[in-house]
Amino acid sequence: MANIPKNTRVGKHAVIEEGVKIGENVIIGHNTVILKGTQIGNNVEIGSNCVLGIQPGSNKRMRKISQNYNQLIIKNNTKIGNIVSIYLGTLISENVFIGDHASIRENVSVEEGTVIGRAAIVELNSRIGKNCTIQTLVYITGDTIIEDNVFIGPCVSMSNDKYMGAREYTLIGPYIKQEAKIGNNASLLPGITIGKRTIVGSGAVVTKDIGDDEVFAGVPARRMKS
Amino acid sequence: MANIPKNTRVGKHAVIEEGVKIGENVIIGHNTVILKGTQIGNNVEIGSNCVLGIQPGSNKRMRKISQNYNQLIIKNNTKIGNIVSIYLGTLISENVFIGDHASIRENVSVEEGTVIGRAAIVELNSRIGKNCTIQTLVYITGDTIIEDNVFIGPCVSMSNDKYMGAREYTLIGPYIKQEAKIGNNASLLPGITIGKRTIVGSGAVVTKDIGDDEVFAGVPARRMKS
Amino acid sequence: MANIPKNTRVGKHAVIEEGVKIGENVIIGHNTVILKGTQIGNNVEIGSNCVLGIQPGSNKRMRKISQNYNQLIIKNNTKIGNIVSIYLGTLISENVFIGDHASIRENVSVEEGTVIGRAAIVELNSRIGKNCTIQTLVYITGDTIIEDNVFIGPCVSMSNDKYMGAREYTLIGPYIKQEAKIGNNASLLPGITIGKRTIVGSGAVVTKDIGDDEVFAGVPARRMKS
Repeated sequence: MANIPKNTRVGKHAVIEEGVKIGENVIIGHNTVILKGTQIGNNVEIGSNCVLGIQPGSNKRMRKISQNYNQLIIKNNTKIGNIVSIYLGTLISENVFIGDHASIRENVSVEEGTVIGRAAIVELNSRIGKNCTIQTLVYITGDTIIEDNVFIGPCVSMSNDKYMGAREYTLIGPYIKQEAKIGNNASLLPGITIGKRTIVGSGAVVTKDIGDDEVFAGVPARRMKS
Repeated sequence: MANIPKNTRVGKHAVIEEGVKIGENVIIGHNTVILKGTQIGNNVEIGSNCVLGIQPGSNKRMRKISQNYNQLIIKNNTKIGNIVSIYLGTLISENVFIGDHASIRENVSVEEGTVIGRAAIVELNSRIGKNCTIQTLVYITGDTIIEDNVFIGPCVSMSNDKYMGAREYTLIGPYIKQEAKIGNNASLLPGITIGKRTIVGSGAVVTKDIGDDEVFAGVPARRMKS
Repeated sequence: MANIPKNTRVGKHAVIEEGVKIGENVIIGHNTVILKGTQIGNNVEIGSNCVLGIQPGSNKRMRKISQNYNQLIIKNNTKIGNIVSIYLGTLISENVFIGDHASIRENVSVEEGTVIGRAAIVELNSRIGKNCTIQTLVYITGDTIIEDNVFIGPCVSMSNDKYMGAREYTLIGPYIKQEAKIGNNASLLPGITIGKRTIVGSGAVVTKDIGDDEVFAGVPARRMKS
């Protein structure tokens, strides 16, 4: 077991592997698993039945793991819900909130004050800025960049593979600029850029780049009359 | 540990906090966590690795928790799957079925005989009537009202925030009247009403109120020729 | 407890019920629950907090369980992530990869080399061929057939109930032929066929059969000009 500070509250049957670092005033739920390499700051709350510090794996048809990751860093004052999974190689900054059933993969950074919704999934190699709202069941594909103060509505879907596995291709997710707002259940295609303060309507399918300060909706997404 | 009736079957490593109430002939799976304030009726079955009776939390960018909730009530003959999370402040009525990986937040009521699908998510302050079918991966946003005998197809998405976090706004989800049927992966906008027995097609985006006995489809949803 | 070979690595607080069979060089994570009837091949890796070998259940408004299932078979060299649930009556073949938070129901077969994405859900009575890629948060409805080498993008939704619970109806999911590719967040209606090598665009709603070698997109999906 790890060296656990006296003011940590650890739930029953929690498993904390050797080498885990835990700050002051941390609360860890029941049955939660914290694997080696995880570093937890001060005043962090973690729910029950989570798995933190997962080592990436793959099979022969998936992309190779490019490197070994050996740290998951969770900074001060962050709250993590129940039944959450987070990988090694990832940084969860201060004052972040991660909802129940969410999953965050390796080589991801989530910056200060951002909310990751319930059952949202963040794939590998993605960056999420400060004070973003990523709502419930959002799918953030691999290799995505989200700047600060972005709002992504529930069930938004993204992809990063233009050829859907048919060709060799450098995977690239969407690039969403600051203060953009994406309506619920919209679909974003690989590599598209969404400009600053731009609004994308619910259920829209964004197939090409959109500039700053636009309002787009529909399938495929088109500029709305103003 | 709680006072557990003799005819309760409790799985290994289950955690049942002090003050939990459990009826007759209850089955609780392995590694399931039942937190204080949870009240379980008779003949209830609960799977493994669940977390029940969660206290709501938030960060500074989320809406304030309006009150303390101290009870989760699960009534007789209800079945709860595996890896499910349910909050305090919620009522799950009799003969309800809740699928694996589902999550239900605080101040929700799910009435008699309703099925909540696998990995479906029900946000706070929502009411779901009797004998509804809420299918897999449905997202029921906060402040939603669903009357009796409603069918919501898989992956339907809802939102409750017209301004996507940009303005102060009273959050309001959809209002879905009795016997309405919503096709899979449809998107419902904040505050819209869907009339009695109305059918919404798969993938439709419902942007305004629809009356009773209508059939709507498309993006945005329009009346279908009859 | 089951008879566990000496070279098996079993995590802390894992629950392995009597009658579970485990091959050589198996790794089982912490807090994972393996219920009776589960048979695990050689070199299988299973993450933490999973529930494997679940007995199907239902309530009075769901379809009856047609038979008793008593085996979940997981073949050699397969990897299963964390927080995964899989039912009895199902066959997971060799070299399969199943992502975290995924859920697979009874009477399903997943053939060799297929990847089932994170939080993807596979309902009952479905067949998934060899070397398929089923991406994150895909919903595979009951009674679906997917041939070999199919690519299904993230968040694709399917349904199998034309009348949405209103009438007696033989449930039938989509039939997706070999090498077809389905874009992210597309919706597939009950019983439709998608031909060999056919491509369906992101966010499309497929309402009728599509032949081989086609490219379809839009709501409803139409042939794209070539």
